[in-house]
Amino acid sequence: MTHHRDGVRQRAQALVEHPRFQRLIIGVIIVNAITLGLEVNLHRVESAMAVLHLFDRIAIAVFVVEIVLRLTAYGWSFFRSAWSIFDLIIVIISLIPAAGALSVLRALRVLRVTRLFSTVASMRTIINALVGAIPAMTSIMLVMALLLYIGAVLAAGLFGSSFERQFGSLEHSMLTLFQLMTLDGWSAEIVGPVMDVYPWAWLFFIPYIIITSFAVLNLFIGVLMSNIEAEKQEHADARAINLEQRIEQLSQHVVELQRLIERRSRDS
Amino acid sequence: MTHHRDGVRQRAQALVEHPRFQRLIIGVIIVNAITLGLEVNLHRVESAMAVLHLFDRIAIAVFVVEIVLRLTAYGWSFFRSAWSIFDLIIVIISLIPAAGALSVLRALRVLRVTRLFSTVASMRTIINALVGAIPAMTSIMLVMALLLYIGAVLAAGLFGSSFERQFGSLEHSMLTLFQLMTLDGWSAEIVGPVMDVYPWAWLFFIPYIIITSFAVLNLFIGVLMSNIEAEKQEHADARAINLEQRIEQLSQHVVELQRLIERRSRDS
Amino acid sequence: MTHHRDGVRQRAQALVEHPRFQRLIIGVIIVNAITLGLEVNLHRVESAMAVLHLFDRIAIAVFVVEIVLRLTAYGWSFFRSAWSIFDLIIVIISLIPAAGALSVLRALRVLRVTRLFSTVASMRTIINALVGAIPAMTSIMLVMALLLYIGAVLAAGLFGSSFERQFGSLEHSMLTLFQLMTLDGWSAEIVGPVMDVYPWAWLFFIPYIIITSFAVLNLFIGVLMSNIEAEKQEHADARAINLEQRIEQLSQHVVELQRLIERRSRDS
Amino acid sequence: MTHHRDGVRQRAQALVEHPRFQRLIIGVIIVNAITLGLEVNLHRVESAMAVLHLFDRIAIAVFVVEIVLRLTAYGWSFFRSAWSIFDLIIVIISLIPAAGALSVLRALRVLRVTRLFSTVASMRTIINALVGAIPAMTSIMLVMALLLYIGAVLAAGLFGSSFERQFGSLEHSMLTLFQLMTLDGWSAEIVGPVMDVYPWAWLFFIPYIIITSFAVLNLFIGVLMSNIEAEKQEHADARAINLEQRIEQLSQHVVELQRLIERRSRDS
Repeated sequence: MTHHRDGVRQRAQALVEHPRFQRLIIGVIIVNAITLGLEVNLHRVESAMAVLHLFDRIAIAVFVVEIVLRLTAYGWSFFRSAWSIFDLIIVIISLIPAAGALSVLRALRVLRVTRLFSTVASMRTIINALVGAIPAMTSIMLVMALLLYIGAVLAAGLFGSSFERQFGSLEHSMLTLFQLMTLDGWSAEIVGPVMDVYPWAWLFFIPYIIITSFAVLNLFIGVLMSNIEAEKQEHADARAINLEQRIEQLSQHVVELQRLIERRSRDS
Repeated sequence: MTHHRDGVRQRAQALVEHPRFQRLIIGVIIVNAITLGLEVNLHRVESAMAVLHLFDRIAIAVFVVEIVLRLTAYGWSFFRSAWSIFDLIIVIISLIPAAGALSVLRALRVLRVTRLFSTVASMRTIINALVGAIPAMTSIMLVMALLLYIGAVLAAGLFGSSFERQFGSLEHSMLTLFQLMTLDGWSAEIVGPVMDVYPWAWLFFIPYIIITSFAVLNLFIGVLMSNIEAEKQEHADARAINLEQRIEQLSQHVVELQRLIERRSRDS
Repeated sequence: MTHHRDGVRQRAQALVEHPRFQRLIIGVIIVNAITLGLEVNLHRVESAMAVLHLFDRIAIAVFVVEIVLRLTAYGWSFFRSAWSIFDLIIVIISLIPAAGALSVLRALRVLRVTRLFSTVASMRTIINALVGAIPAMTSIMLVMALLLYIGAVLAAGLFGSSFERQFGSLEHSMLTLFQLMTLDGWSAEIVGPVMDVYPWAWLFFIPYIIITSFAVLNLFIGVLMSNIEAEKQEHADARAINLEQRIEQLSQHVVELQRLIERRSRDS
Repeated sequence: MTHHRDGVRQRAQALVEHPRFQRLIIGVIIVNAITLGLEVNLHRVESAMAVLHLFDRIAIAVFVVEIVLRLTAYGWSFFRSAWSIFDLIIVIISLIPAAGALSVLRALRVLRVTRLFSTVASMRTIINALVGAIPAMTSIMLVMALLLYIGAVLAAGLFGSSFERQFGSLEHSMLTLFQLMTLDGWSAEIVGPVMDVYPWAWLFFIPYIIITSFAVLNLFIGVLMSNIEAEKQEHADARAINLEQRIEQLSQHVVELQRLIERRSRDS
């Protein structure tokens, strides 16, 4: 019985790992991406939508079959890869019945296309590099989030009474300060109107802009550079260790030479 | 008497440095941050505000007790740490009675949350790194400030008579040129209208944009990079010195060997 | 007969490679650039246009003669240089009869000026450096394009029904999200209006802004830095290999010395 | 007679190079900077203006005396320093009689404050660094200027007939494309309106934005980095050469050892 199971597992594995099978899956994802894009522009043409929906159902079917095959092939070790779990979640989201009312869930179908990130090797490398940079960013992100929170509460306390829309609630105040950080329309939309009521408001806004811009530039470039440097350091260290080992060998040669001469002088 | 004092000091120190005590302080800061945030959204709900104010008073009490304990524990050496002085100032600001009229002072209460920067170790590291980058930035900042000042006086002299709001006073002129430096709405809000009156105005604005953008990019990236490089250089230098010392030892070894043979040849 | 042809070819080559000839071509390109610029401002002054058109026709004639000469000089090997093919295409575009209706084709004449990039050596270096950075960018560009596509389909599905102009079709949705990525007017023109209808819309937009900004910064700086580092690494590796070889030689020297002594001690 | 002249020259030099004299000049520049700033805000208060104008005349007198002293002290070698020529030009501009009509010339008086850049040592270093980065930038700047010029002529040809204000003349077209390059309001002010008339206009604008942003980022960061790297390379090369020399010494020691042994073996 387990014999039979192993046979099935091996055949599933052979199928799943076959280059043609993977190319088929990539093809289905791309076709599905295109049909989902076409749905946006043709959503009023009923005949076209019928065809596109058919394509969509075929794509879902293919994805479900693929996930079942991979689960058969790898068993529990399927769940050891973060990318596999990612694929599984995306497929499960696809299966949620998208009733007419839940247009949000229907829209989420396009997330299936993110499976290209997990299936195409070169993209997976890039995403891995991006995700790998996140841990080093977390405490920076926390500092930035805290600066945003403190600034938002402060701005709400200072200007909230006169600027209900921008600083009336904590959410709006944070959103307004996030806009300030991105420097988008900060003068005409935020600082200008506020300074008409509170002429000293620049004492809060200008330092806030300088500090956050400086912090973002400094911290992000710092982390990016130190990541790149760390890699290079390893290479340079390996080179230095290599040199040290060669010098070490040379030293041993000289020591042997010394012993040889000393022995000879004792012998003679 | 001093004996008794020392005993108190030691017990205070043991308490203050206990991980649980520090976690308690962090907890109080976070809860206080949340209550201050809630106050923004609930400032019209009187019953909620009563509870939030209670929380606020408890937090202040905890902070005062903590500072007194730390002063007891460390005495005058408390003032040797910049972070301690920072904490003390923040707590003193919290104690200023925030009368209804002084809404600004009430708003400043949220600055207490910045105590997270001094209390959470990983954040202290980041803030230290940011503050540590400031000295290298000061002369750059001075150059930028001077460029802003000169540009503001020049622009006020050139366009001030026709553009009272943007260039009518030194402050407004500096603010307008700061906006120009951040590239926010420079075309529609500043250069466009000015050029309608003075068609040659781009001769001032475009070079100003290019020079300040180039200076900011060049100087900041330059400083950031040279900071990172300096650290790395030390590492590389240490490695090189290590190699040099090994080669030096080896040379001495060979020289000794030479002397040994020479002595032997003299002896024989 | 082939003799005669070789003579023609050699004389053509001598002419084409003569510094004065190249300076003449650069001069014609620059004069043509100026006349094309003047045409923009004088397009209502008929007498001026007649002169400028004459200049234009002379420039085209010179370019055609130059290309024919280069084809004569180099034969099929002309097509081995990407820059030569670039020049040929630019000249062919120039020859398309620009009828009054096809103002687009008339406007494309200015592309001839890009021939400065291929003719002036220092510019060719810069363009080569830029083009050389493209291969390393392609998978990054693909990831960014995919993020844009997925975001556009998602945003069209979520907000398309209420915001026809911004998210009504796939093209407009992509254009709107590209605007979001450049942070231009994102608050007043995109996120603000959408949040008035869908207050939860920031849940989509703010992460999208943070992710794409982070990705652009991270990936582009990463690629730029690793290109620079790669060059430097080679230099450092060459230096390390040099040191290794010297130590290797020295080791062999010592080993020979050892053998010498051993032989001598056997001999004596 | 020349004796007497030499005496005057030496005394002038001693005076000019005295730290107190230099501090005086810096003080006068700063006071002058402040009075020029005050003039902006007080230009309607006649009594204040009288005082400020007095200060201004004193400052000019001091600057003229200083330049005369420096010319006396250094003679023709005064003109060898670019900074000295800079100071001279600034003082000459100050002496041009600023009649009421020539408000532009009056405004240019503030350029005197740039003398701080040449007089304060730490600022001179920064400006030297900035100016030193320019040569490496020139061909990049030329490429960017050419891209701007070609784009401007092309855009004028394509959209000039319908968008007189943005693309009607070469100057306006260049200004509009410069705005596009800074990403300021590109969507609402440029691409949006143009696409309402020419729906295919994004085919020109979006690639233009991507290419110029990419070029600016790539080229500027490239130059900045390679400048920093060049400095570091020198340091690393010096270290490597040091190691090589030590290995060379070691080799000579070993060679001497060999000779010694060979001589001994011949002797015995």
